[in-house]
Amino acid sequence: MDDATPQTVTAAFLVIGDEILSGRTKDKNIGYIADFLTMSGIDLMEVRVVPDIEDRIVEAVNALRGRYDYVFTSGGIGPTHDDITADSIAKAFGVAIDHDPRAMAILAAHYPPGEFTEARQRMARIPLGADLIENKVSKAPGFRIGNVHVMAGVPSIMQAMLDAIAPTLRTGRKIVSRTVDADIPESRIADALRQIQADNPDVIIGSYPRTNDGRFSTQVVLRSREPDRLVPVAAAVEAAVAAAVAAAQAARG
Amino acid sequence: MDDATPQTVTAAFLVIGDEILSGRTKDKNIGYIADFLTMSGIDLMEVRVVPDIEDRIVEAVNALRGRYDYVFTSGGIGPTHDDITADSIAKAFGVAIDHDPRAMAILAAHYPPGEFTEARQRMARIPLGADLIENKVSKAPGFRIGNVHVMAGVPSIMQAMLDAIAPTLRTGRKIVSRTVDADIPESRIADALRQIQADNPDVIIGSYPRTNDGRFSTQVVLRSREPDRLVPVAAAVEAAVAAAVAAAQAARG
Repeated sequence: MDDATPQTVTAAFLVIGDEILSGRTKDKNIGYIADFLTMSGIDLMEVRVVPDIEDRIVEAVNALRGRYDYVFTSGGIGPTHDDITADSIAKAFGVAIDHDPRAMAILAAHYPPGEFTEARQRMARIPLGADLIENKVSKAPGFRIGNVHVMAGVPSIMQAMLDAIAPTLRTGRKIVSRTVDADIPESRIADALRQIQADNPDVIIGSYPRTNDGRFSTQVVLRSREPDRLVPVAAAVEAAVAAAVAAAQAARG
Repeated sequence: MDDATPQTVTAAFLVIGDEILSGRTKDKNIGYIADFLTMSGIDLMEVRVVPDIEDRIVEAVNALRGRYDYVFTSGGIGPTHDDITADSIAKAFGVAIDHDPRAMAILAAHYPPGEFTEARQRMARIPLGADLIENKVSKAPGFRIGNVHVMAGVPSIMQAMLDAIAPTLRTGRKIVSRTVDADIPESRIADALRQIQADNPDVIIGSYPRTNDGRFSTQVVLRSREPDRLVPVAAAVEAAVAAAVAAAQAARG
């Protein structure tokens, strides 16, 4: 790892769309981008979902872009009347928006003669000063302005846009993780985990309860930017789990 | 529908947990609560996901509870050191937090003699002035303080807590929806939809593109609190779709 690598790069993800909030569409992008950023060495610090209302989009974009290194958005950049993301982003940045010659050229080449309609031209509306984000799936580009990356909501298109963006992103040292599976309820190892966390403040210890047919188990996840630090802490957690399992067995007689 | 029914009741959902932001756990609660609230006549207006960091939880809770009729949270109310939601909520409301006698009684009755450990007692820490939310799955209660409902993150437990909360919620007139499936890309009906939306501002028209093996289709979703209004608007959309399909077929010869 290069010493010049910054320790942390942060990001927020903004999902734009009534359909997620109404439950009609089940979001598939949050989990995907969380994995994508974690694997890239970028810390996803916040997600928001807002409706297709200009003021709410503007407010969220401005709150998030001031706070994190990167903002990624999904949704609302299609050709229909309810696609208001591009205009909202322009408003958030206080810049004009118009049909972008580069986007017009991409789309004009894509559609058969006479079929590059006014509605489709709407997908070429890009805020002034933005760079385009390539869309290999359906051509209509996303765009980047400042630290905000504006992508489509359709998962296959968003994923293709993320791939296009990836080489341009500054990344930090990756957080690596290690999971210890514990076949006991988390309350039986809570005291031990608290002590291990206190003894190892540089490793983030998460305890995640699970239920399966009324049977409780736990996954203990250790996270650090220093892979070597996971080894002794995992050993301590494994010892604590083994002790708790033994105690539970002894109690059952 | 009773005339006294308020027109709208709004809500926000706050997901608390590093594991969602890291991608380790894929959220299943947003889609569930979106459906639950929509069916209840409560409009979900915003979702946020924040990490297990007290300041971020406090800030989000205070931003959301001032803005919406209800806030629902999930995650961070277990027995381990990384469960800091209850303390963060107490801080957001500026109230004390301590072992709650009602919660202590529920948990003391649940565990075998001698097994109601200090870690498990931690699950009885409830902000002063809160009401408990019953947990039929694993007993450790959630709680309500002001307009904020604090629930577990494990989906089966969150769902049971929502069922326990449901009878206490004020609800508005339900938004009903009707979907028109269109086997054409949305750009082919965008102009017509824009006109239909302009003619019917009281019905929310959403256009949702889909891809399936590179083939584009569209779902047009009409939403209103007046079921009768969906009928003529759906007819107009169906006519527009039929015209666009016929035009596309004619263009193909």
